[in-house]
Amino acid sequence: MRLLIKDITVIPMTGPEEIIKNGAIAVEDGRIVYVGPAEEAPSDFRPNRVLRGSNFVALPGLVNAHTHAAMTLFRGYADDLPLKRWLEEAIWPLEAKLKGEDVYWGTLLACAEMLLGGTTTFADMYFFMDEVAEAVDKSGIRASLARGLIGILPGADKALKESEEFVRRWHGKANGRITCMLGPHAPYTCPPAYLEEVVRLAEELQVGIHIHVSETAHEVEEIRRQYGCSPVEMLEKAGVFRVPVLAAHGVHLSPRDMEILAQYKAAVVHNPESNMKLASGIAPVTELLAAGVTVALGTDGAASNNNLDMWEEMRAAALLAKVSRNDPEALPAYQALEMATLGGAKALGLADQIGTLEVGKRADIVLVDLARAHLQPPHDPISHLVYAARASDVDTVIVDGRIVVEGGRLITLDLGEIMARSCSAARRLVGKPLHRSLL
Amino acid sequence: MRLLIKDITVIPMTGPEEIIKNGAIAVEDGRIVYVGPAEEAPSDFRPNRVLRGSNFVALPGLVNAHTHAAMTLFRGYADDLPLKRWLEEAIWPLEAKLKGEDVYWGTLLACAEMLLGGTTTFADMYFFMDEVAEAVDKSGIRASLARGLIGILPGADKALKESEEFVRRWHGKANGRITCMLGPHAPYTCPPAYLEEVVRLAEELQVGIHIHVSETAHEVEEIRRQYGCSPVEMLEKAGVFRVPVLAAHGVHLSPRDMEILAQYKAAVVHNPESNMKLASGIAPVTELLAAGVTVALGTDGAASNNNLDMWEEMRAAALLAKVSRNDPEALPAYQALEMATLGGAKALGLADQIGTLEVGKRADIVLVDLARAHLQPPHDPISHLVYAARASDVDTVIVDGRIVVEGGRLITLDLGEIMARSCSAARRLVGKPLHRSLL
Ligand SMILES: [Zn+2]
Ligand SMILES: [Zn+2]
Repeated sequence: MRLLIKDITVIPMTGPEEIIKNGAIAVEDGRIVYVGPAEEAPSDFRPNRVLRGSNFVALPGLVNAHTHAAMTLFRGYADDLPLKRWLEEAIWPLEAKLKGEDVYWGTLLACAEMLLGGTTTFADMYFFMDEVAEAVDKSGIRASLARGLIGILPGADKALKESEEFVRRWHGKANGRITCMLGPHAPYTCPPAYLEEVVRLAEELQVGIHIHVSETAHEVEEIRRQYGCSPVEMLEKAGVFRVPVLAAHGVHLSPRDMEILAQYKAAVVHNPESNMKLASGIAPVTELLAAGVTVALGTDGAASNNNLDMWEEMRAAALLAKVSRNDPEALPAYQALEMATLGGAKALGLADQIGTLEVGKRADIVLVDLARAHLQPPHDPISHLVYAARASDVDTVIVDGRIVVEGGRLITLDLGEIMARSCSAARRLVGKPLHRSLL
Repeated sequence: MRLLIKDITVIPMTGPEEIIKNGAIAVEDGRIVYVGPAEEAPSDFRPNRVLRGSNFVALPGLVNAHTHAAMTLFRGYADDLPLKRWLEEAIWPLEAKLKGEDVYWGTLLACAEMLLGGTTTFADMYFFMDEVAEAVDKSGIRASLARGLIGILPGADKALKESEEFVRRWHGKANGRITCMLGPHAPYTCPPAYLEEVVRLAEELQVGIHIHVSETAHEVEEIRRQYGCSPVEMLEKAGVFRVPVLAAHGVHLSPRDMEILAQYKAAVVHNPESNMKLASGIAPVTELLAAGVTVALGTDGAASNNNLDMWEEMRAAALLAKVSRNDPEALPAYQALEMATLGGAKALGLADQIGTLEVGKRADIVLVDLARAHLQPPHDPISHLVYAARASDVDTVIVDGRIVVEGGRLITLDLGEIMARSCSAARRLVGKPLHRSLL
């Protein structure tokens, strides 16, 4: 399969001033073989398929670096509640009833939503991960998958064993679209001895660790009470940073925590909308970037967001940084877009494969249509992508060289079936629907 | 013209638990004559036109209660700058070159964007207001228009005179879709003596006043230095609250300010995205609501937002209230939606005509399509509207009983021409385009 995209503007994400007007991208066997001015494209490239559109801006596929995809099933079921009640009265009782099939359909719904919105890769932590992997495989999206591990629960060792089997089964599968990590849930649910076991296994399997870190002030206090140090310091002592770490949230971090994260090249995934909605706090994004920490962006699960829209997440990150630091220059547009692309690729250990549009990388490409009322006049496409665009402006999505969305429609999936199956699952899970429910 | 909308869910915005499943709305001569269960609809109503869709949720048209519509022309031209540089180096030099024709096309572009996103009414403050009114008339949208008045500039008296003529020419026109206010820009640009003149004219014309109030900390300090009181107190002394007041921003307000606003039934228009982007601060929305002040929502101009998307604005308001107050229960979904509908109607002095779906009100109705991946399962449509929906989920928009958007497409306007004309205007205004510009 040879694909040529031309008559487009290319934003390769290789630098804030890099923009290729009247550009072209050539893709062969899922890999980018040319990106540059259209007139310099190799004349001997014979495409099977040509995409074009002078209103289109091409950029790397977005990376949703922290989510729980199947939680789409709980979208809107419980909002505007304190975290404890939200978890104990709404989320956990539903999760206790989840079956593998529910997770499969909930994950497909998430994949559909993400692909339609230009997200080509996500990092997931959940359970029934075989079903998650099957949904990823089927949808054509790229994902880094981690089975959530709760060290303090009975069965924690069994879960670790299953996690090992999951990694051996799926890591590198689906033509490399699926990679795996280990997913110890958080410092407050995984004691040091358990974390040490997880790290040993990660080293053996040569995979990274995906973990929630310092999401709430309460968690930080709790860890300090138990271990006399911060969650990041506790992870350091347990040896977690011997392997690549994707640390979700990082809302409450000390300067010392940031030093540690930078030293070990750990990545922090900023989830501004979830942190705002649950009133967890505001992550110190500009400080993290200044400290040299890789920062990525994520939506978290749809139960606390309530969508998986990375355009909103970029905008929220950029706006929240400015108002919280009282500095309109904080987190400019290019930096927010970089967090959502290259930052995510780095956090997932995939920066050699995705995150920018460069020759040799896998072809994960999004075409955004600027011929929309809210994206005109086109003074600056990067500003528009971050401050004005929305998921529905995505016209075409290519993952690993395969067109999965075209003209704003899913090609790989039957959205009607996915919505119907997700509703059935949701109906069974909730039992008695809410007063306002349309289920 | 008799229009029947049926097989829909109706969210009339008459109370948080009010929801009509399998509902119907009947419209005659631009007025709602029935809203309720489909089976109780008047059997003798003979519609010329029927709209239906079991995936559709009907809600009142959104009210963008503070914007500068024609500033769409500057969208993305200058971002990530301190306010002073943004104004002095980017916005003012462009505004100095504006002609009436530019404002006409920029306003039409804004009307197109707003209508497509379900905003049926907006409150505007700008100049070349005859052209703004013509664009409003043509587009079919509803608007409250105010010519901006800068009391400290030479020509301020002439501007007031022109403002009077504008009100006399347009107030109540376009079948009542156009109403007018007087628009003294702000306390720091309009001295008390000038404000007193404005109030006298407003009383004579029986219109309200649209004014920026306490947007930045700097402004509050400046007023205190000059007048020894807060901007709200300064307005009170000048007698401004003798007429209905729409106070845009209200970011930096004292408890006493809030008392004054409540006492005189002034409305505050919250502009969360603009306030975040310019790092102006976070308006005390929950305190204002607790004090009994009417709070509406606005986008501000597209140069500081950078779109006119009220769905984002609702979401930003709800999320920002939670994180800034460290309270996940702050500003629940219904309250955010109420600010964007009934709150806006009150702020514009139009609550007897729009803001809810009730018999006797003008038919400003939006149909949102829930059959989208990111809006499923439909556990709670109000949660989805605020926390998950986007402007592109709007299928149909009706203003004053007339269908202006259907199937997500504009019926009243030629979007291609508007985009082309806006780009021409922008090209002329900027002279030398930005490096990344696609103009
Ligand atoms: Zn999470
Ligand atoms: Zn304004």
